Amino acid sequence: MLRVDLNCDMGESFGAYKMGNDSAILDYVTSANIACGFHAGDPSTMKKTVNLALEKGVGIGAHPGFDDVVGFGRRNIAISPEEAYDLVVYQIGALYGFVKASGAKMQHVKPHGALYNMAARDPLLSEAIAKAVWDVDPELVLFGLSGGELVKAGEKRGLKTASEVFSDRTYQVTGELTSRKEANALIEDDSQAVSQVVRMIKEKQVQAVTGKDISIQADTVCIHGDGAHALSFAEKINETLRAEGVELLSIGVER
Amino acid sequence: MLRVDLNCDMGESFGAYKMGNDSAILDYVTSANIACGFHAGDPSTMKKTVNLALEKGVGIGAHPGFDDVVGFGRRNIAISPEEAYDLVVYQIGALYGFVKASGAKMQHVKPHGALYNMAARDPLLSEAIAKAVWDVDPELVLFGLSGGELVKAGEKRGLKTASEVFSDRTYQVTGELTSRKEANALIEDDSQAVSQVVRMIKEKQVQAVTGKDISIQADTVCIHGDGAHALSFAEKINETLRAEGVELLSIGVER
Amino acid sequence: MLRVDLNCDMGESFGAYKMGNDSAILDYVTSANIACGFHAGDPSTMKKTVNLALEKGVGIGAHPGFDDVVGFGRRNIAISPEEAYDLVVYQIGALYGFVKASGAKMQHVKPHGALYNMAARDPLLSEAIAKAVWDVDPELVLFGLSGGELVKAGEKRGLKTASEVFSDRTYQVTGELTSRKEANALIEDDSQAVSQVVRMIKEKQVQAVTGKDISIQADTVCIHGDGAHALSFAEKINETLRAEGVELLSIGVER
Amino acid sequence: MLRVDLNCDMGESFGAYKMGNDSAILDYVTSANIACGFHAGDPSTMKKTVNLALEKGVGIGAHPGFDDVVGFGRRNIAISPEEAYDLVVYQIGALYGFVKASGAKMQHVKPHGALYNMAARDPLLSEAIAKAVWDVDPELVLFGLSGGELVKAGEKRGLKTASEVFSDRTYQVTGELTSRKEANALIEDDSQAVSQVVRMIKEKQVQAVTGKDISIQADTVCIHGDGAHALSFAEKINETLRAEGVELLSIGVER
Repeated sequence: MLRVDLNCDMGESFGAYKMGNDSAILDYVTSANIACGFHAGDPSTMKKTVNLALEKGVGIGAHPGFDDVVGFGRRNIAISPEEAYDLVVYQIGALYGFVKASGAKMQHVKPHGALYNMAARDPLLSEAIAKAVWDVDPELVLFGLSGGELVKAGEKRGLKTASEVFSDRTYQVTGELTSRKEANALIEDDSQAVSQVVRMIKEKQVQAVTGKDISIQADTVCIHGDGAHALSFAEKINETLRAEGVELLSIGVER
Repeated sequence: MLRVDLNCDMGESFGAYKMGNDSAILDYVTSANIACGFHAGDPSTMKKTVNLALEKGVGIGAHPGFDDVVGFGRRNIAISPEEAYDLVVYQIGALYGFVKASGAKMQHVKPHGALYNMAARDPLLSEAIAKAVWDVDPELVLFGLSGGELVKAGEKRGLKTASEVFSDRTYQVTGELTSRKEANALIEDDSQAVSQVVRMIKEKQVQAVTGKDISIQADTVCIHGDGAHALSFAEKINETLRAEGVELLSIGVER
Repeated sequence: MLRVDLNCDMGESFGAYKMGNDSAILDYVTSANIACGFHAGDPSTMKKTVNLALEKGVGIGAHPGFDDVVGFGRRNIAISPEEAYDLVVYQIGALYGFVKASGAKMQHVKPHGALYNMAARDPLLSEAIAKAVWDVDPELVLFGLSGGELVKAGEKRGLKTASEVFSDRTYQVTGELTSRKEANALIEDDSQAVSQVVRMIKEKQVQAVTGKDISIQADTVCIHGDGAHALSFAEKINETLRAEGVELLSIGVER
Repeated sequence: MLRVDLNCDMGESFGAYKMGNDSAILDYVTSANIACGFHAGDPSTMKKTVNLALEKGVGIGAHPGFDDVVGFGRRNIAISPEEAYDLVVYQIGALYGFVKASGAKMQHVKPHGALYNMAARDPLLSEAIAKAVWDVDPELVLFGLSGGELVKAGEKRGLKTASEVFSDRTYQVTGELTSRKEANALIEDDSQAVSQVVRMIKEKQVQAVTGKDISIQADTVCIHGDGAHALSFAEKINETLRAEGVELLSIGVER
């Protein structure tokens, strides 16, 4: 039976500032990427989010990002690989505190925003991140863009990895996501987005913007958690995948 | 044979800003309280400091403080016990990342600055801190002011605690430190400071500013790491204690 | 003719985090207290908010707070009067940059949250804040709790001050606001809240929680800008006051 | 008579962290670039530094940088031109608060670190910075790398500009500084560094690393303020220039 993981960024509130609809969206996903205080998420939010994910039986992951709340971790910062190693170790550790305090288990690590995108293209940055994950806990699963450098670095290091695909983004023929600066970066139509995901899982293919089919590995699908639309889309993709006979299972669950 | 632990705050550099003389002072102490990024210490500094302490065989502890780099964690912030719990879990976790990555072991937790002083007087704050330590790892030793609320809360929670004394501070008849706002708060004379420590360890007594002797428990002695004077004082207290037949041993070492 | 100013905290968004409904609420108030980046507000938000207030003809004020985004400036921090002076000068200056760049004029300064409340009770803190305002621009109007220390310090320093009253808070017989920790701190009923304001303006009296009337000066009324309810309440108080023959005019407008 | 300005970065301490030797170095320079709290400098440090520069009769300038204390503003951050505008307006304003409170006058603006280097190569970023300076105060002098985009953008906007040269850095044949990643980026020999400056001022020429002479405009010379060496070098360059008949004068002084 085919299986896939559905992941969503969570715990991105910050003090008095609220973001996302974590509790509701947790009903439709199997892995939660929890912000660790650098781009979003304060200690209280982290604790609540870990507990929420634990209650709902959703896999818990660290979502380390750049130290840039005002930019929400979306701005490239020219850090060295060593700095990347350090900030990933720090943030995994910080979340680990709450995971341990709740008697939970950490399942995975997914870098956030600009760090994720930079890592997908940069082998040295990716190696540093993969080493950070390995050094803290070699059992953790490393999430990265399907076909990107982070997944390669994780495999090279000996980590279990999860190749991530996007439902609402178009792909270049190289396997890269179309830049958000391009007009055709986003798939606005829900049915089309869901169809793309189903095909990526079942046929391991996606049609690039050129019209050409390319190969793609879909271990986990990224679902966005904010926006009015997020919840209904999460529900739709969840239901369609199950109707198509795809099992939805946290990446860390051994079947 | 009498034993005592000598502890020092460390890893308080921050990016381009350097503080302290960690490598040298580690030769004279048995426990290192490592800043965790909130009042001081950035991820790179934490990594280096953990590795330095590991090399020198010094006990590694988390030194969580208020989220206030510009105030160096020395300004009281009116947080709730729950906020205290959250920031202590976060910071222990963050350091734990580096400890685990280095294959080391975390020995203790000592709150920093204003958080330490507020906890010494506030049972609810102390209970929250003690619970945070316990929830992350019940094997950790909790450091607090000798006779203060934090040590009491740690014992109540079931943690191993270390009652801390100060060589260069004078004591009130209540067992509290004389406020730094008072003229007689500090003991400037090194010999007098060392004598006070020796007596606290050997006789479990200290002379309060009123002239009256009070009982005191000295499991660990706080040594300051910054200032030109710090290194020579660390050397002096280390040598005197050993000459007096007091064994210097990390708090976590079972004899 | 009686006149009063209606003020509202604004510009409290922070990067990707949105707060309040500034554009709509500006239609009902006469003065905007704009966050300056320490407790809320980033540079881009400050610029937008200054321009919005300018378009709507609303008086522009600096809203300096503690350096504590995660606590939204609501937690007491034990700063010295000199530190208060410095952070108020800094934040007025920062907003002044945008005011000058927009060709606008700064009208007033109102400390935020915990800084406001601490100043209301602390003469030394208030003197430092009043001096900061004076030193940057002696034409600025200083807002403070009616009857509190900040208004007194402003007057002593020679500043024009605005005594602020609250529509939705109850008063102690001392003239202080009832602490939010008390059950009866808030006036939930809109009509009662509006009536309290009308009476404070027209009769210079408010009924304290003990039932006793006390004297109060109402130069400006604080309206809250967040919450679903905020907009309709702003509209209601605006309309009622005008129907009662009270002129709504920015504090800085000379009639 | 030839004249030149000598500038130095200052006010880069941060809370308990001390950096530089501002008071001493002010005796040898004519313009001070004062950090504004984003990459370094806290409000108390800014106040002290403004007052120190005022006492010594040195021109006061804002030194805005990226919002990155832990990276000391030295890491490229991919901000939009609009974000650059906003952060420059904010930081000039913040320093302006202290300048106004001290009864001083602001003379110039020099972007810091990575922002300076990125602007030198990026016309859109430079235009945004030049517009920010102009919008806050069109009398301010904009400092930028001699031959770089920032000076061009300033001139285009109508600002007075100062072309900056470096004594201890080597130049590419394009007029760019040799990257610090290259072995020959720095001129270690003091005499050689001073000779390079004298020639840049007197002959408007500098020898690039290829051996070829290139034209260069030297309105202001950058002196580094930290490091044990800084003070003696500042003294040496100051004395040599005066001995060579070059007048040392703040950029803003009309002769």
